Amino acid sequence: MQPVLIDGNWQTPQSPADTFQAVNPAEKTEMSAIYPVSTGDDVNRAVQAAKEAADELGIDSAERIADFLETFADNIETRAEELVEQASLETGFAKEPRLGSVELPRTTNQLKQAAAAARDRSWCRATIDSSSNIRSKYGPLGGGVAVFGPNNFPFAFNSCAGGDFAAAVAAGNPVIAKANTGHPGTTRIFAEAAFDAVKTTGLPKGMIQLFYRLKPADGFQLVSHPFIGATGFTGSKYAGIKLKEAADKAGKPIYLEMSSVNPVFILPGALRERASELAEELYGSCSLGAGQFCTNPGLTAVQAGEDSENFLTKLADHFSSNAPQTLLGKNGPRDIAGGIKILTQKGAEVVVGGQEADGPGYAFQNTVLRASGDTFLADPEALQTEAFGAVTLVIFAKDTEQMKAVAGSMEGNLTGCFYTHTQGEDDEIYDQIEPVLRQKVGRLLNDKMPTGVAVVPSMNHGGPYPATGHPGFTSVGIPASMLRFAAGHCYDAVRPHRLPVELQNKNPTGEMWRSIDGTWTKSDVGS
Amino acid sequence: MQPVLIDGNWQTPQSPADTFQAVNPAEKTEMSAIYPVSTGDDVNRAVQAAKEAADELGIDSAERIADFLETFADNIETRAEELVEQASLETGFAKEPRLGSVELPRTTNQLKQAAAAARDRSWCRATIDSSSNIRSKYGPLGGGVAVFGPNNFPFAFNSCAGGDFAAAVAAGNPVIAKANTGHPGTTRIFAEAAFDAVKTTGLPKGMIQLFYRLKPADGFQLVSHPFIGATGFTGSKYAGIKLKEAADKAGKPIYLEMSSVNPVFILPGALRERASELAEELYGSCSLGAGQFCTNPGLTAVQAGEDSENFLTKLADHFSSNAPQTLLGKNGPRDIAGGIKILTQKGAEVVVGGQEADGPGYAFQNTVLRASGDTFLADPEALQTEAFGAVTLVIFAKDTEQMKAVAGSMEGNLTGCFYTHTQGEDDEIYDQIEPVLRQKVGRLLNDKMPTGVAVVPSMNHGGPYPATGHPGFTSVGIPASMLRFAAGHCYDAVRPHRLPVELQNKNPTGEMWRSIDGTWTKSDVGS
Repeated sequence: MQPVLIDGNWQTPQSPADTFQAVNPAEKTEMSAIYPVSTGDDVNRAVQAAKEAADELGIDSAERIADFLETFADNIETRAEELVEQASLETGFAKEPRLGSVELPRTTNQLKQAAAAARDRSWCRATIDSSSNIRSKYGPLGGGVAVFGPNNFPFAFNSCAGGDFAAAVAAGNPVIAKANTGHPGTTRIFAEAAFDAVKTTGLPKGMIQLFYRLKPADGFQLVSHPFIGATGFTGSKYAGIKLKEAADKAGKPIYLEMSSVNPVFILPGALRERASELAEELYGSCSLGAGQFCTNPGLTAVQAGEDSENFLTKLADHFSSNAPQTLLGKNGPRDIAGGIKILTQKGAEVVVGGQEADGPGYAFQNTVLRASGDTFLADPEALQTEAFGAVTLVIFAKDTEQMKAVAGSMEGNLTGCFYTHTQGEDDEIYDQIEPVLRQKVGRLLNDKMPTGVAVVPSMNHGGPYPATGHPGFTSVGIPASMLRFAAGHCYDAVRPHRLPVELQNKNPTGEMWRSIDGTWTKSDVGS
Repeated sequence: MQPVLIDGNWQTPQSPADTFQAVNPAEKTEMSAIYPVSTGDDVNRAVQAAKEAADELGIDSAERIADFLETFADNIETRAEELVEQASLETGFAKEPRLGSVELPRTTNQLKQAAAAARDRSWCRATIDSSSNIRSKYGPLGGGVAVFGPNNFPFAFNSCAGGDFAAAVAAGNPVIAKANTGHPGTTRIFAEAAFDAVKTTGLPKGMIQLFYRLKPADGFQLVSHPFIGATGFTGSKYAGIKLKEAADKAGKPIYLEMSSVNPVFILPGALRERASELAEELYGSCSLGAGQFCTNPGLTAVQAGEDSENFLTKLADHFSSNAPQTLLGKNGPRDIAGGIKILTQKGAEVVVGGQEADGPGYAFQNTVLRASGDTFLADPEALQTEAFGAVTLVIFAKDTEQMKAVAGSMEGNLTGCFYTHTQGEDDEIYDQIEPVLRQKVGRLLNDKMPTGVAVVPSMNHGGPYPATGHPGFTSVGIPASMLRFAAGHCYDAVRPHRLPVELQNKNPTGEMWRSIDGTWTKSDVGS
């Protein structure tokens, strides 16, 4: 049985709550390694160790944390081949062009950005009012951060190496990683590489801990434990809402990224101008990662007419002429079929696809559905059911007013796109619908598909519920993503030598941005 | 019956759910005005009107909002005498030195600061990455903000004029104010003054709405309604937790300020040095507003010994020699007695006070209790029971280790104070205990009492649960308090003429702070 990592020890549980094996989705076979389902006692020990690590770290750990994150990134690069091999087996994703040259560098880049942010310290938004001598900044939460990773990015969102991990650690918090059960072996390698970096850089031994799986009640215990600072979760709405309920009841912050159909509004002028190009672009975005991206465009809105019928024909050609890709796990085909069933029961029609695909691996036909605006508006909630694969539902609105109503009935989403005529012929329609869609999404795009999520400070990978649990935070983009894992620390009349270095008169690095008496500056206080 | 304000109409309900009257606590008499308890239908109408107002306002309302806030502040100043008169009747607070010359100017100052922040636009933290052309900022929530105000600041935290109101409006959101039932008349005057300003400045008629009271189920409906953006609540833990549960279930942000005993740690050197001065200072802070401040120091920790016994004697002298003040309402004496009962049942002893005070108004004797560190640590949760009045419990820890344990067993608090020797004799003890207390409080003070809450950008009037509902936000301090009522709005490859002015290349005011490619600047993009 594979060991878990608790309190600095790789340990094989004597009496696990249960065991499980990962599945190779490209071959529909169980893999040989056996992983334990951990117990509530294990959770308690890990949470205690994380609390001790948080206490040992204190609030001035920036340099140590940065060293750790950089060493960890180096360790990952050293073990890149092994990681790519394991993740490809566990997820069915291609080693190239995806895992090795795209997702792995993205992951180490995130860790290095997080290290730079920790070292730079500007992330903590030091705010100093010199006349009242009140000073504040963000600081660590004083306990562990639990991270639950999703199945669809085994590296970049891995609970022990991905965006939430990097953000939580860079903000000064120990992490308790709960592996996604789809790729426990990949996560174990990350945890080994991380814990090696913990030892190399002398961080507290409870800094990084790892579980593979927990029973629901033990997961609730983890996110609601008094010693937990916060939780980051990316995954299904079903599991997310249950964890949220437990965390909310205990007054513990939980940041969720759950579900999104990422509507794309293609306005009439754009269709007139470049329907072929748009059909190809939409297919490309819908089929990335076998359609299993959080930002996958699952809903497309057009205005009914000849142009949109032509567009649909071209779109359907792309979907039907390209081979289905391997899905992440054995539930994939069933879940997609379940989603499509709800859509068709509510009046959507399958244009192409709609069935599980034959072949050696778990797969589902690339699928396009259509529905009228009237059909959509009769039950917008059901018709926003996510089918997590290469599936898009095209809504044919009868006019601009109805397209606006479709936008108005969207749930909270991570993204929303407008495709518009390049010479301004859609400007009037855009101006009518954009204010409605703006309220529903975290990121609004123009003539660009949502599937690229750049790791830049201005990124907002967030959005209103149920896309996430809070509309004011982002899970991608450093340093903003770090603010999820931080508490407000104010110092009122605290004597100078007792202030954290970020709030002392002298700028601790000479390069840190601070807001002093309303001015953002790198200067010292009083200079 | 007094009218409510819904959708731009002052209207007297035909079939209210119930009615109530306010009480004059200085005379223990019911006041004559009759106020309606509003219905669920009223809630639905108000929420719909707020949504329409949010849509009409859009995301570029900064100038209109700023004009409104300034006009409202002027209207308040015009009606200052009437407000002071009414609030004094409803709360028992002195017209002077408190209501007229302290709390009212603070309130109008907050509104003017909020207006300046709206106009300045820096609050929205515009972040621009020019190479990827991704731009983001905070924007309004797209629906109404419900504000529930507390009883203890009829002006500065009033649901229709106070800090939450100012922050929500300045961030671009309509407000639905739920008056504290202790001062409905005061709140009505504010709502009149606010709605007059709405009309003068041409804002949407659903911008400001007012209820006096709601049945619990209708309150839950308000905070969880799909058209509500968020809720701000200041009040009891009991009510706050119920509202939180309803809002959480609907995925709606709710910001709560609930309870806090605001521990004061007086270290041995400080007691040696200036016990008399400290006793006087602590009494002064404990008795402000009859002890009914959110930041009232309800728990004091000292180390057992002769100095601390002397200190207690002096402290008790102040408490017993000063007359009790009028409490806010008829439940005050009962609630304080209930709190003290829990404390004494768990081993605390009354030193002075402990009984309801005789007299024309609702009052309770100024009360000091004591308990050993052992007693406290045997049931720290019960011994942190808040007695909302001029009551403090002095804990006698046997040594530094036990003082540290007391700090470690504190719940989340708004504030925590250290009093220390002026010449550094307490530095060693401070260094041991401060990291523990730091994790438990939003604002840490040094040789200063917590009851002053300056309205400056660096203020953090927040803290871990159950002091508030989220450790990353503050309800006082502009512009930070505005971020509670904002959503992340990202624009990815959106064409220049479609960007909000805050994110266009040209700085919209020439004075707005923006983070462009990692640099905080007032310059244009690309300059």
